[in-house]
Amino acid sequence: MVRSMPNQSVELDRVFQALSDPTRRAVLRRLSGGGAPVSELAEPFDMALPSFLQHLKVLEGCGLVRSHKSGRIRTYQISPAPLKAAEGWMSEQRALWERRLNQLDRYLETLKPTTDQKKKEKR
Amino acid sequence: MVRSMPNQSVELDRVFQALSDPTRRAVLRRLSGGGAPVSELAEPFDMALPSFLQHLKVLEGCGLVRSHKSGRIRTYQISPAPLKAAEGWMSEQRALWERRLNQLDRYLETLKPTTDQKKKEKR
Repeated sequence: MVRSMPNQSVELDRVFQALSDPTRRAVLRRLSGGGAPVSELAEPFDMALPSFLQHLKVLEGCGLVRSHKSGRIRTYQISPAPLKAAEGWMSEQRALWERRLNQLDRYLETLKPTTDQKKKEKR
Repeated sequence: MVRSMPNQSVELDRVFQALSDPTRRAVLRRLSGGGAPVSELAEPFDMALPSFLQHLKVLEGCGLVRSHKSGRIRTYQISPAPLKAAEGWMSEQRALWERRLNQLDRYLETLKPTTDQKKKEKR
């Protein structure tokens, strides 16, 4: 699922954009420990409520959180799929460069008998 | 290293911001397979060179890539540390919510003898 997601994905654009803000990352971290109502989520931040709600809107817009209203209380929960997709994209890049480094290692290994030890230690 | 990075980290802000653009993600993907000069990196994109260079500047600014100039050719390479930090932040969130889900599982398990099967299947 993650691997078939194209590089150009608008979803990834929005998820990474959402993660680029410290308030939104802090909210996600809080929600990773369990759902919470707006009042509790807003409490640690020295921020006007409308600004804070704007952050929640960005998080909900890209699917990182979802909410439901019960009476007058809106409660938020984390929604792991987009975070997993973003993490998947990153692991994929890491796998690519690690493979390349391994190939380089193997290549250097093949040079072993023909180069003297000193030269290799200098690298 | 990753775990000590605070949530408020300006570095994470900039890394996630850099990753929120499909051109920049495509460049990183290309560079994960090995270093490349500007001309080769720019080739797949239907974009004016100054705009493309701006993307490279953003990537270099947050440390995701580094470059060196040899004669008139500037070559770029991926620099994995910031990507690892961002991936680390994400894995940390995933670990938190997975732990919570496991706790919930264990809690539901303790309810087993006192609830009838039908009710649990409905959840």
